[in-house]
Amino acid sequence: MLAAFSDAATLRHALAFEAELARAEAAEGLIGAEAAEAIASLCASIVIDLAELAEEAALAGTLAIPLVARLRAALTGEAAKALHKGATSQDVADTILTCQVRTARSLLGADLSRITTALAALAQRHAATPAIGRTLLQDALPIGFGLRIAQWQAGIAEAAIRFHHEVETGAVLQFGGAAGTRAGLGGKAAAVSARLAAALGLPDAPPWHARRGGTAGIATALAIAIGALGKMARDVSLLAQNGIAEAREPAIPGRGGSSAMAHKRNPTGCQVALSASLRAPGLVDGILAGLPAEQERGLGGWQAEGPALADLFLLAAGAADAMATVAEGLEIDEAAIARNLTAAGMGNDIGESAALVAALLAQDD
Amino acid sequence: MLAAFSDAATLRHALAFEAELARAEAAEGLIGAEAAEAIASLCASIVIDLAELAEEAALAGTLAIPLVARLRAALTGEAAKALHKGATSQDVADTILTCQVRTARSLLGADLSRITTALAALAQRHAATPAIGRTLLQDALPIGFGLRIAQWQAGIAEAAIRFHHEVETGAVLQFGGAAGTRAGLGGKAAAVSARLAAALGLPDAPPWHARRGGTAGIATALAIAIGALGKMARDVSLLAQNGIAEAREPAIPGRGGSSAMAHKRNPTGCQVALSASLRAPGLVDGILAGLPAEQERGLGGWQAEGPALADLFLLAAGAADAMATVAEGLEIDEAAIARNLTAAGMGNDIGESAALVAALLAQDD
Amino acid sequence: MLAAFSDAATLRHALAFEAELARAEAAEGLIGAEAAEAIASLCASIVIDLAELAEEAALAGTLAIPLVARLRAALTGEAAKALHKGATSQDVADTILTCQVRTARSLLGADLSRITTALAALAQRHAATPAIGRTLLQDALPIGFGLRIAQWQAGIAEAAIRFHHEVETGAVLQFGGAAGTRAGLGGKAAAVSARLAAALGLPDAPPWHARRGGTAGIATALAIAIGALGKMARDVSLLAQNGIAEAREPAIPGRGGSSAMAHKRNPTGCQVALSASLRAPGLVDGILAGLPAEQERGLGGWQAEGPALADLFLLAAGAADAMATVAEGLEIDEAAIARNLTAAGMGNDIGESAALVAALLAQDD
Amino acid sequence: MLAAFSDAATLRHALAFEAELARAEAAEGLIGAEAAEAIASLCASIVIDLAELAEEAALAGTLAIPLVARLRAALTGEAAKALHKGATSQDVADTILTCQVRTARSLLGADLSRITTALAALAQRHAATPAIGRTLLQDALPIGFGLRIAQWQAGIAEAAIRFHHEVETGAVLQFGGAAGTRAGLGGKAAAVSARLAAALGLPDAPPWHARRGGTAGIATALAIAIGALGKMARDVSLLAQNGIAEAREPAIPGRGGSSAMAHKRNPTGCQVALSASLRAPGLVDGILAGLPAEQERGLGGWQAEGPALADLFLLAAGAADAMATVAEGLEIDEAAIARNLTAAGMGNDIGESAALVAALLAQDD
Repeated sequence: MLAAFSDAATLRHALAFEAELARAEAAEGLIGAEAAEAIASLCASIVIDLAELAEEAALAGTLAIPLVARLRAALTGEAAKALHKGATSQDVADTILTCQVRTARSLLGADLSRITTALAALAQRHAATPAIGRTLLQDALPIGFGLRIAQWQAGIAEAAIRFHHEVETGAVLQFGGAAGTRAGLGGKAAAVSARLAAALGLPDAPPWHARRGGTAGIATALAIAIGALGKMARDVSLLAQNGIAEAREPAIPGRGGSSAMAHKRNPTGCQVALSASLRAPGLVDGILAGLPAEQERGLGGWQAEGPALADLFLLAAGAADAMATVAEGLEIDEAAIARNLTAAGMGNDIGESAALVAALLAQDD
Repeated sequence: MLAAFSDAATLRHALAFEAELARAEAAEGLIGAEAAEAIASLCASIVIDLAELAEEAALAGTLAIPLVARLRAALTGEAAKALHKGATSQDVADTILTCQVRTARSLLGADLSRITTALAALAQRHAATPAIGRTLLQDALPIGFGLRIAQWQAGIAEAAIRFHHEVETGAVLQFGGAAGTRAGLGGKAAAVSARLAAALGLPDAPPWHARRGGTAGIATALAIAIGALGKMARDVSLLAQNGIAEAREPAIPGRGGSSAMAHKRNPTGCQVALSASLRAPGLVDGILAGLPAEQERGLGGWQAEGPALADLFLLAAGAADAMATVAEGLEIDEAAIARNLTAAGMGNDIGESAALVAALLAQDD
Repeated sequence: MLAAFSDAATLRHALAFEAELARAEAAEGLIGAEAAEAIASLCASIVIDLAELAEEAALAGTLAIPLVARLRAALTGEAAKALHKGATSQDVADTILTCQVRTARSLLGADLSRITTALAALAQRHAATPAIGRTLLQDALPIGFGLRIAQWQAGIAEAAIRFHHEVETGAVLQFGGAAGTRAGLGGKAAAVSARLAAALGLPDAPPWHARRGGTAGIATALAIAIGALGKMARDVSLLAQNGIAEAREPAIPGRGGSSAMAHKRNPTGCQVALSASLRAPGLVDGILAGLPAEQERGLGGWQAEGPALADLFLLAAGAADAMATVAEGLEIDEAAIARNLTAAGMGNDIGESAALVAALLAQDD
Repeated sequence: MLAAFSDAATLRHALAFEAELARAEAAEGLIGAEAAEAIASLCASIVIDLAELAEEAALAGTLAIPLVARLRAALTGEAAKALHKGATSQDVADTILTCQVRTARSLLGADLSRITTALAALAQRHAATPAIGRTLLQDALPIGFGLRIAQWQAGIAEAAIRFHHEVETGAVLQFGGAAGTRAGLGGKAAAVSARLAAALGLPDAPPWHARRGGTAGIATALAIAIGALGKMARDVSLLAQNGIAEAREPAIPGRGGSSAMAHKRNPTGCQVALSASLRAPGLVDGILAGLPAEQERGLGGWQAEGPALADLFLLAAGAADAMATVAEGLEIDEAAIARNLTAAGMGNDIGESAALVAALLAQDD
C-alpha cells in the first residue's frame, strides 16, 4: 500500500497520463503522430530524481508544473508544443489519485476477503457454542459464540461492498483543462477523453475538478470499513482480557511483547485496528470540510484531500492486514467460554443464533 | 423535519412497534389474539405526557423501559405478559430511528429534487454564456456560466443518489431481543420479524444492534449532500460579492437584513448551507468514532449516534430548503458577467462548456 | 445547564445588553438620561413570546434584528433612536454567549470540584491497596489501586484549570458595532465599552467578532475535560465487568436497568460520559473549522459556533454530573481486587504508588 | 520541522534517555558508575541503521523494544542488566515526544514571531487608511485597513501565547515504569526522575502515561494557531481576487504559477495555510478521541496520538512559514482600497479604528 502511494507510483501514473494524452490527441488528429510518439517514448524512458522533483512540486504547489517543464525541456519542435495540450495540473493530479485508488482498492479488497472468509469459517464452527452475550460491558444473556463473529463478518463484508461501489463510481478520469471546459481541442475533447480513459483503464467521465463528492464517498467508505475492523478488534481485545480469556490473538514472533514484562501477549493486531479507527474519522473530516470548494478549483480544500485519502488507505491497509492475521489465527478457548457462561448463571438458551449466523453469512453472497 | 424527529413522532413509532410486534406474535401463535388486540388497542389510544416520559427515559437511559412499564401497568393478565415479548429496548430505539430516517428521507429528497430541477434549468439557460472561470480564487479562463451551475447540479444529484441508496440499504428493521439472538420465540422469530417488518413498512433484516455501518453510511451520505449544497452556497456567495456581482440570492422579506445597515442584502441562504457544511463533518465524526462498539451493545457509541444523526438531518433539511429557495430565485446579472469577462482579458473561448452541461445533466436521468 | 442556554436566558442577557448599553451611553453624554432610562425600564418590563421571537430570529438569521425592532416599536422619540446605538447584532449575540459561558462555567466548575474532591478521598484511602495494573487491556504489574484513581483525579483537575483559564481569557465583552470599528460614538466608544463591561460583570476587551480563538479555546478545554471524565468512565466500566468486578457504579433507582434483564446493573453513568467523549471531538471540529472566518464577519463559521459550544457545555455538564455521582458512590470490592492480583501472579510490589498518589493530588492545590 | 520529527531525531532522543537514566540511577546508587558510563558511552557512539530499526519497531509496536535489545546485546555484565532499569517502552516514547515538541516549539515560535512583527508594522502603517469593511461577504461600513490586519495579528499572538503555555505545562518528563508505579528503584525513583529530567532539560513530573490531557492541550493549541493563520490567509486570498485587488501575496519564483496559464499569480501561501486549517481539526479529533484511554496504557488511543501530533506540527510549520513570507511581503494597493471604498458609497468614517489597532497590538506585550 505504501508502494501504491509512493512518489515512484505517482510519477509513473503522471508519465502515463502525459503519454496517453498525446496518443489520444494524435488519434483524433489534434497533434502529429510523431510528436505523440516522441512524448510517449520520452515518458517511457526518462529518469527523474524523485527527491528533486518532490521538492520542486512542493514549491510549485503541484507536481505537473515541474514535471511538464522537465519533459518539455527534453523535447523539441512540435512535440514540445504538443505536450500536455488541453490539460491542466489538476487533471494530472486527480487522474494520478484515481489510478492509485484503484490499485489500492485491489490490495485492500484482497485483505478484506481474507478476513471475511476466515471469519465465516469461525462463525460457522462456533455458531451453536453457547457463550455469555454482553451488553454495556455487562453479562447479558447467552448467545452462540459464532453469532458475534458473524456480526463482525457481516459488518466487514457490507463495508467492502460499499467501498467497491464508491471506488467504481468515484474513481474516474479527470480531464477538463485549465477551467474545466475542455477548451482548445477543436471539438474533439470528448473523443480524446474517451480514448485517454480507455488507455489508462479508467471509466470516462465529465470533469469533476471542483465536485469532490466522489472522493468523499471513497473516503467515508474507507472509514466505515476501518470502523468495522475496529469493531472486531474491540471485541477480540475484550475477549482476551485476563479475567475473560475466551479468545486471543495468535502469537507472532517479535510482535506484542513488552520491554518490561516478558510474559505478556499484547493484542497488538487489535491495537493497530483500534488506532486506525481512532484516526480515520478525523481524516474523513478534513475531506468533508473541503467539499464547499471555491469555483473551478478550491483554495485549500482540494490540496488537503490527497494526503488524507492516502492516510486513510494506509490505515485501512494496516488494519486489514492486522485483522486478517487475527482472523486466520484466532485462538478460541471453549473451556473459558463455558466457564464464563456458567458463572453468568443465565442458562444456555442461545435462541436462533445458528439461524442468524447463516442469515448473516448469506447476505454476502 | 423537526416533526420527523420530535418526541411525538418518536412515541408514535414506539407504540407502532409494540402494537405490530404483538400482532405478529399472535399471527405466529406465540401469544393470544385477544392479548395482541388489547395491546394494539392500548397503543392506539393511550395518552402519554411527552415531557414526563422524556424525563423518565433520560434517567433510564432508554425510552423503552418507562414506556413498556406504563403500557404494562395499563394491561392485565396475558396481555401484560405478552407485551414486548422477545424484544429489547434497543429494538425499539433502532426501529424508531429507522422509521424516522425513512420519513426524513422523503422530506429531504423532495427539497433536493427541487434544487436539481431548478439548477438544471438555470444551467441549460446559461450553458453558452461566456463568463470568467476562477481557480484558486483568481481569474483563470472563460467558462460557460451554466457549466458551473451544472457542476453544482451534478454534485447534488449524485449525493442524492448515494443518500437514497444508503437509506434503502441501512434503514431496516431491528429485531433481535436482549442479546441479539431472537431467543424466547420458539423458533418462530424469523417469521415474526418478517411480519413485523411488513407491518411497519420496513425491509426485514437480521439484527444489527452492534453493527452500525448502515447508520454510518446514512450519516456520511448526508454529510456529502450537505457538502454539495455548501459548494453551491460557497460559489453563490462569492458571486454575490460587491466587486463581482454576477449573481445573488433572491430577496426574502425578513431575511438577510442587518440590524445596523439597512441597505445590505446578505447571502443568508448561503450562510445556512455553509454553516451546515461546517458542522456536518464533526457530527459524522462522532458516528464513525462509535463504530468499534463493545460486544452485543456498545457503551457510549450507540447512545451518541441518535442525536448526531438527527442533527445531520436537521442541518441537511435547513440547507436544502435554503438552497432550494436560492436555486429557484437566483438573480443572475449577465451584464456583470460580461463586464468581468472583459476585464479578465482572456477572450471568450468557453471550449465545450455546452456539451459538458448536457453531459452532466444527463448523468442524473 | 439547559437553563443557562435556554431561550429565556438568551433573551434576558440580550435585554441586559441593550439596557446597560443605553445607560453607558447616557453616562458618556451620547444619549439623554431619560432616553436611557426609558430603554432600561422597557428592557426590565417587556414581555415577549419566546417561541415567536425564536421564529423571527431564525428567519432574520440573528436574534437582535427582531428584538430591536420590537423594543423600538415600544419606544418613542429620542429613546427609539437611542436604542442599540453603535451596536450590531453580533455584539448582542457574542455578549450573550459570553454571559452564558460564564454562568455555565460556574455550574460545571462545581460538579468538577465534587468529582475531584471525591476522587482525592478515594485515591488516598486506596493508595497502598495492591491491585493488578493493566496495559493494552492485559494484566501487567501491580499498582496501588488508588494510583489509578489519583490519575483520574489529576486529569480532571488539570482540565478544570485549563477550562477556567480559557473562560477567563476568552469570555469577554464584545462591542464593536457594524464593522468592528466602534463608529458613531464620538470618540467615547472605549469609555462606553468599559462601562458596559463593568455593568454586565464582564472583562472589557477590543472587539473580537471575527477573531474566534478565544471561543475555540473554551471549546477545546471543554472537550479535554469531557475526555478526562471519559477516561475515568472507561476505567470504571472496565472494572465493573463481570470477570473483573473490582468496582462498580452505585445503584440509582430508575437508572441502569434493562427492559429485558432485571438483574443487570449497567454502568449508565459511565455511558453518559463515554457517549459525551465520543461526541465532543466532532463538536470541537466544527468550531475549529470556522476559525478562518471571512473578513469582518464570517459566512457560516460564526453561525456554526454557538450551537456547538452549547452542545459541548451540555455534554460536559451531563458527563460531570454523572461522574460526580459515580465518584461519590463508587463501590470498591477489595476482595475482588486481591483475587485478581493473586490470579495475575505478578507479586504485590506496588513501587512508589503511595508517594505518586500524594504527588498527583498535591498538583491540584 | 521535518528534522525535529525525523527518525534520526527520534533515535537521538531515545539514546539520550537511556544514557541519562543510567547516569541518574548511578548517582542514586542504584547501579554502578562504571555500568552507567558503559551505557552512556555506547549510546553516544552506537551506529544504528534507521530503516532496519524502524521496521523492527513497527513489528514490535514500539521503538524501545528493538532499541533496548540492540543496546543490551552490545553490553556485558552489570551494564547489560542495568540498562533501561525501571523504565518501560512508553517512558521512552513519551519522553522522545516531549523533547520533539520542545524543539518544534522553538521553530514554530520563531515563525509566529516573524508574522506578528510584520503584521504589527503593517497594521500601524495602515491603521487610518479608510477601506470598506465586509461582513457576510458583503460590503458593510468603512474600517481602517490596518484594523483588519491588527485583528489577524492579535489572533496569531494570542494563539502563540496559548501554545507556549500548553507546551510549558504539558511537555514534561515521562518516567513511570511498566505500570506507572516507579517500581524496582528502592524508594529512589523520585530522585532519579528529578535527575533525569534535569539532564534532559525537561520539567520533572509524575508519570502521565494514560493521562493525555497535556498532549491534547498542545494539539488543540496548535490547531487554534493554524486556524488563526488560516483566518489571515482567508482574508488575503479574498483581498487578492481580481474584482477586489486590495492586496496580494508577494511573487516568489517557482511558486504560484499555473501549468496552463502563465499570467496567474495564485495565492499559494494562503493555500498552504487554508489547507492546513482544513486538516488540523480532524487531527485534533483523533487525539481528543483517544483521551478515554484504557487503564495504565490505552489500546489504540495512545498509538494514534504521535503521528497526529507530528502532522499538526508539520502543518503549523508549513502554514507559519508561508504566512511569514506573505506578512513580510504583502503588496497593498491603496488605490484599489480607495476605489472600492468609493464604490461602496458608505462614506469614510472609520470610527475608532486607529485606537483599536493600538489596543490590539498592545495586548501582545
